[in-house]
Amino acid sequence: MTIQLGLPFPQDAARAGAQESRALAAMHSRRDKFRTWDLPREAMSKIPREWQVQPGLTQQVPDDLAPFVEWFNNQPQARERFRWALRDSLDELLDGQRTGRWAYQHLTKTEKTYLGTAVEVNLTKEFEIANGADLDWSIAGLDIDCKFSKDLGGWEIPMEMYQCADHGERGGRADHAAVLTWMNDDTSEWAAGIVRITDERLRWKRAPQNGHPARAYNRDNKRKLADTAKSGVYWLWGGRQTDLPTNLLLHLDREARERILPATPPGRRPSGQERVNQLFREVQNRIVGRPTVLTVAQQDDAPKRVRDARKKVSPQGIVILGHQGSHPHVARALELPVPIKGEWISTRLVPVTCKDERAKFSLDGQFWARAGRNDPSTDPAPDLPDTREIDGQGTAAGSTHDCEAE
Amino acid sequence: MTIQLGLPFPQDAARAGAQESRALAAMHSRRDKFRTWDLPREAMSKIPREWQVQPGLTQQVPDDLAPFVEWFNNQPQARERFRWALRDSLDELLDGQRTGRWAYQHLTKTEKTYLGTAVEVNLTKEFEIANGADLDWSIAGLDIDCKFSKDLGGWEIPMEMYQCADHGERGGRADHAAVLTWMNDDTSEWAAGIVRITDERLRWKRAPQNGHPARAYNRDNKRKLADTAKSGVYWLWGGRQTDLPTNLLLHLDREARERILPATPPGRRPSGQERVNQLFREVQNRIVGRPTVLTVAQQDDAPKRVRDARKKVSPQGIVILGHQGSHPHVARALELPVPIKGEWISTRLVPVTCKDERAKFSLDGQFWARAGRNDPSTDPAPDLPDTREIDGQGTAAGSTHDCEAE
Repeated sequence: MTIQLGLPFPQDAARAGAQESRALAAMHSRRDKFRTWDLPREAMSKIPREWQVQPGLTQQVPDDLAPFVEWFNNQPQARERFRWALRDSLDELLDGQRTGRWAYQHLTKTEKTYLGTAVEVNLTKEFEIANGADLDWSIAGLDIDCKFSKDLGGWEIPMEMYQCADHGERGGRADHAAVLTWMNDDTSEWAAGIVRITDERLRWKRAPQNGHPARAYNRDNKRKLADTAKSGVYWLWGGRQTDLPTNLLLHLDREARERILPATPPGRRPSGQERVNQLFREVQNRIVGRPTVLTVAQQDDAPKRVRDARKKVSPQGIVILGHQGSHPHVARALELPVPIKGEWISTRLVPVTCKDERAKFSLDGQFWARAGRNDPSTDPAPDLPDTREIDGQGTAAGSTHDCEAE
Repeated sequence: MTIQLGLPFPQDAARAGAQESRALAAMHSRRDKFRTWDLPREAMSKIPREWQVQPGLTQQVPDDLAPFVEWFNNQPQARERFRWALRDSLDELLDGQRTGRWAYQHLTKTEKTYLGTAVEVNLTKEFEIANGADLDWSIAGLDIDCKFSKDLGGWEIPMEMYQCADHGERGGRADHAAVLTWMNDDTSEWAAGIVRITDERLRWKRAPQNGHPARAYNRDNKRKLADTAKSGVYWLWGGRQTDLPTNLLLHLDREARERILPATPPGRRPSGQERVNQLFREVQNRIVGRPTVLTVAQQDDAPKRVRDARKKVSPQGIVILGHQGSHPHVARALELPVPIKGEWISTRLVPVTCKDERAKFSLDGQFWARAGRNDPSTDPAPDLPDTREIDGQGTAAGSTHDCEAE
């Protein structure tokens, strides 16, 4: 192994050190300061009546779109990966770790315009989609563009996507297809469709001079789809989807959210760690993902924050299950969703007898079940082993048969 | 404190669990897979002769731009914060933690178009710039737009920024000012200028029909600055800057980079942790920032990777100094740049006598200095204390005076 020799010190390297250190900038940077955000008053998405999309549609696949539809259908877990690519795109833009933001409406105007690019970038990575010759993507060997709008029907189509006698060189070489994507975090809905763009399917208006039909461009020479174009869209997975991964902080009960992220705390402002502790007290029996922990902490080491939170919530009988050691077994035994890496789930435990009919697990001879509303919170949570498996007993009939005599 | 009660299980919550868990998507996601990247063959930036910007300029501030220039001059450490906002914008887009990328040229076409937005977003946050009435920003109470181009002279100006008799409503309400930003990671150069946009300062061409001057629009109805407009630009901080924070992996010696990130390793592929260990063996006496560690590790917990690397490089005499405990004191004593949070610096130590003229520190009665080229690498590095200060002695004359008799 060769060791790279040090730069000569202190002359040149002092300069390199100054160039490479953030010390001076960090003293004044306001990018990472803590702040709280209000629940947005206006909706994220517009859904005009003409563009409402039903769930559970059965549509015939147009012949010219069949290669694209088939390609998506052949990607393993495509629907799951698509909805997470949408979720992650918005979460990346929110950048909660540095800004504390948890709603689309908290973004600046400029950031909002970038959500479409983020969606395209993440779908490209997720499905390893190659570049097209003229357009963003090549799918099944054919050029296709990816378009996002938070508003149904709001997709903006540039000239290069379609042929037009009047555009000459500025127009497209063909009438290309587009993947239309949409999400609404307020309702956890999303959709993906495919449509062939044509001059006729885009908006027209009446020219003010003579009342003749004229193409309706915006300032960037883009046009939206005409309302009548909706019948030409083939919706993947049957139309409107209702399971955009939940934005936990947005959909949380307002009082709970304010206990986690107090705007004007009565005493001193809680630390990032204290906010994370409170998150796992307030949100139980539900998966909590990395972005939520980072947004609440406004710090960059989510696993560390969760490890430290465990010690703080344990006296109240609460465990925070992760993806390692006995934790997935405990989650399964308690009939809770099982966290994977970067996911956690907290739950309050109570000691129960082996005859208790709830889903439970045993550790060192003691059974534990999820606490009900009326269970007292007097017992601290047990220490869950890092490596050992635990014995679980579900609620299935007969599961208490092996109960030993007490 | 109110505890939020669990959702009823297993019925509804099983659905919520499925909606909120990434488990199915994660099985197939390709977004996080490891890969290596080649050194780009083409340059990042175009620098046309007409747009070359000198360093160290002394320009008179045009009256109409004075409020903007004064505002920037009044921001504490503005130049430092500006260059880091540029660096961070590119690093965020590279997303090395998930993609392993370390050069602008590794970005996709779509991502490249977003760099300007990222720069604007980060400058907005960094300097807490308010929204303008018509444009991106309001600085000193005046509307101004932020424009980025990787090519000097490549900024694209939309219609709403300037007045034009022929545009009518589509034009701007006034001739607005723009902040022009530029960076070239290949040469670690950057620049920021301010210019008043006018119809005359933008590009014109000859109309093909009649040879008359016509406005030179691109497909989005934007125009670039005319070459003659350069004289109207006031460059902040004297013009071209040569200290864009170094992109360490890009500027690293090729062999060293390939030892850290081997494309086709002779044996098994090194783990993320092993790559980080190698990073701190190869790159000594220079600040290594969080993005570099994350890109090399392709994992999300940089401080943990560094902590674990310490144990692995210690037998070779190497210490990795961070921002805590005795580390900043050791760095200072060794006349190395002092890391702040999220920065590290590694160096190889050798035991020396108190008479050694090198900068050194003592720990438990033993002096240590930075190893030179010819120092053997037989001594393991000392364990640096977490809390105690250490005694340092610089190279200043007389610093060995207190040397005790040996």
